[in-house]
Amino acid sequence: MTVIALPGEIEVVNLGLPLFADAIGDQGRPVVHVDWRPPADGDLTVVAALSRLYGKRAAAIDEANAEVARRLDQGIPVLVGIGAAGVALPGVGERTIVHCGPRINWDRVCDPLRRSVRAAVMAEGWADSPDGADALLTAGEVELEPANLHQAVVPMASAIGPSMPVFVVDNPQGGTCAYSAINQGPGEVPWFGRETPAAVERLVFLREVAGPLLAECLAGTGPIDIFGLASQGLQMGDDLHMRTQATTNLFVRAILPQLLGLDSPRRAELGTFLAGNHLFFLNLAMAAAKSLTLWAEQVEGSSLVTTMSRNGTDYGIRLSGSDEWFITASPPVGNAMYYSGFGPDQAAPDIGDSAVLELIGLGGSAAAASPAVAAFVGGTMADAIATTEEVDRIAVARSTRLKLPTLDYRGTPMGIDVRKVVELGITPKVNTGILHATDGTGQVGAGVAEAPIECFREALLALDRRLA
Amino acid sequence: MTVIALPGEIEVVNLGLPLFADAIGDQGRPVVHVDWRPPADGDLTVVAALSRLYGKRAAAIDEANAEVARRLDQGIPVLVGIGAAGVALPGVGERTIVHCGPRINWDRVCDPLRRSVRAAVMAEGWADSPDGADALLTAGEVELEPANLHQAVVPMASAIGPSMPVFVVDNPQGGTCAYSAINQGPGEVPWFGRETPAAVERLVFLREVAGPLLAECLAGTGPIDIFGLASQGLQMGDDLHMRTQATTNLFVRAILPQLLGLDSPRRAELGTFLAGNHLFFLNLAMAAAKSLTLWAEQVEGSSLVTTMSRNGTDYGIRLSGSDEWFITASPPVGNAMYYSGFGPDQAAPDIGDSAVLELIGLGGSAAAASPAVAAFVGGTMADAIATTEEVDRIAVARSTRLKLPTLDYRGTPMGIDVRKVVELGITPKVNTGILHATDGTGQVGAGVAEAPIECFREALLALDRRLA
Repeated sequence: MTVIALPGEIEVVNLGLPLFADAIGDQGRPVVHVDWRPPADGDLTVVAALSRLYGKRAAAIDEANAEVARRLDQGIPVLVGIGAAGVALPGVGERTIVHCGPRINWDRVCDPLRRSVRAAVMAEGWADSPDGADALLTAGEVELEPANLHQAVVPMASAIGPSMPVFVVDNPQGGTCAYSAINQGPGEVPWFGRETPAAVERLVFLREVAGPLLAECLAGTGPIDIFGLASQGLQMGDDLHMRTQATTNLFVRAILPQLLGLDSPRRAELGTFLAGNHLFFLNLAMAAAKSLTLWAEQVEGSSLVTTMSRNGTDYGIRLSGSDEWFITASPPVGNAMYYSGFGPDQAAPDIGDSAVLELIGLGGSAAAASPAVAAFVGGTMADAIATTEEVDRIAVARSTRLKLPTLDYRGTPMGIDVRKVVELGITPKVNTGILHATDGTGQVGAGVAEAPIECFREALLALDRRLA
Repeated sequence: MTVIALPGEIEVVNLGLPLFADAIGDQGRPVVHVDWRPPADGDLTVVAALSRLYGKRAAAIDEANAEVARRLDQGIPVLVGIGAAGVALPGVGERTIVHCGPRINWDRVCDPLRRSVRAAVMAEGWADSPDGADALLTAGEVELEPANLHQAVVPMASAIGPSMPVFVVDNPQGGTCAYSAINQGPGEVPWFGRETPAAVERLVFLREVAGPLLAECLAGTGPIDIFGLASQGLQMGDDLHMRTQATTNLFVRAILPQLLGLDSPRRAELGTFLAGNHLFFLNLAMAAAKSLTLWAEQVEGSSLVTTMSRNGTDYGIRLSGSDEWFITASPPVGNAMYYSGFGPDQAAPDIGDSAVLELIGLGGSAAAASPAVAAFVGGTMADAIATTEEVDRIAVARSTRLKLPTLDYRGTPMGIDVRKVVELGITPKVNTGILHATDGTGQVGAGVAEAPIECFREALLALDRRLA
């Protein structure tokens, strides 16, 4: 008969599900828990693709990724002026509305973006009522084009016609140029999914007053280094996505001599608009980010994401070196805080091109920079730091200019690797606003959206095929 | 014979000097070190006074202190306009220059303040050269008055004549009103101890352009809540003493519609001045702080400090409920960083009224708010947090509106108790600039100054006598 001697003490290492570790911990015994999950949720097709992309192809991919990351980090985007969308944006036709997110037919457009597009049509003078605008769109007499396919990005449910002013942002290092609309500000505005007379009037104000006067200021200042301001803003509590207050103020101060030098009798209206628009800098940061991704996406054979964009119906991403979109349904914004009287039932799905910020080290990637955003979405600084740390796990680099004071001036994570996303099941976290889904109320909340994993899996499998 | 059995393990608690604890720690044994020092460095006269002030008189003192702290915390100072110093400041004569720090005779005034006073005399048109101004001052034909005795505070080596514009800050809760000069900005300026033609010209610009135009803006905005802006600025990396960049920008944005509404052809000059002056808000924060201390100091029988002020020769403090000054030599700024080519040998002693900020929860008290200031003075965020924690040990309260994001939104310490200062030997830490001691170069560095303990001891002994 064999006697098995039980040891006096047991030390436990637990892998995977935490239940067993918890049970041992509850009995007061020491236990080390390793948060291990099977890669790609154990999907064998995906695991096989991952093996190849992390295997013999890894060296070439890593080299391409390093070049993509270098471009995202080293381009120095400068605001050089303001143009009209129909003239500045390459390939935009005369009767075209440029919108957020992937390409979409009018019949599939979500409610807030429908309203915004109709407001844009009215601001162009093509219709004088939402119904009139809708009839033109239904009849196909107005073309819809994704901003992303014309070197532009627009936030939330933004839609702009050819007469609307756009910021022109050059990236001289990369020879690329990107565009964004002027941020429409708070309240009754189309980018929040409104089409009221006041909302249309805001677009007219941007075209008639803000655009020309800001253009005059920029002619006086010369090119403005956007990331020079953004990196200061990160030190002042902005994440540069949900909060751009400090950076907007820095921008206003940068052009203050020119603002006060304006002769136009309408300059005070511009002052009131700028003073009341905390998110004015958002669109500048986005255009700067787009000028970098336009340079980065020219690199072949990389596994890094260079487009991430939503139209409120579809969520689409693209990888560097390919025009192919990978599209899935736009999800609700998960970790959200709602204005009083609103909740998830009224919330439209995730929308806007602003997720381009999360690809280059701003927004969710820079969550640890912003105690105010952390508090606004109902969390603590520890939560915000955890968000940044999680993005770090799926990124290949850290910014050399966008720094986090709370993390000893570590750079924000940037360069999202589709391999890491799929392997770990961690998608980018996007700080974003939430719009009403159906009734044109406008913004009803804000939160941290998780990008849907499906399009990343499809992108990974396509990359595997492309590199075969 | 008695046998003493040595224990198998020794556990050590060490009090006072750390040498013994270090020696045990070096041998790998556990040791608890208690950082205990004899109170008041063991001075028996002071210890006896402390015993009385912490003993049977403690209840009355604590009650008075609570009221002083309530006033420092609950007044809501608002900027209501701009006046001329000679008209607005009570009791200032026609041929008077108002200066920083305690009262001082011209022959004892330090070099940077001498230059600043002479520049102020020239700006008034009383002399057309530094020598001419000096002759007037030496002959006693121009009076010197401490700003602090006329409800005003001025930073660094500031000195202002009767024609100069001053901010008017009301504290309606307390029925007090305080004043400060308009900040002179960077470069060749009198408040940094310069008296060049450009420095005098800056004073003329403030009187002829900035003052009148800002007054016009304030007539349009109505009263501006200074701590409403300051509390936001703390969330944006300002300590509101050495760094006021974020808060200055918030102020500019608050008056932007009025700035852009100005008709004056000189408005662009004001734009250039504001855009280039990161410390513009400093003087507003100081005037707001003074409006609170003017209310607080009316409370009798408190041990809290309500004046702390330096003229570069003398360092003076006052306690609530008494007009008596306690004065000692102004010390060098200890923990300092110097501009290239300068060092302690060229540094003037600590100077300016701005230390009023440290009495109400800003500046050194709010060090933990500002990673940028921490880095500028050569430290880390941990050092900045330690500075705030140390002020916490000598303060009786924490602000309910000035919050520190890095310390889980804890309020900044405020209400400096002379008993705690003397007992612990910890004086307030003051974030401040450093001026050249002799040659009129201007600012040569910045650092964290420690208030000298001597005047606090004198104040404690006087309080003990006064309450006897």
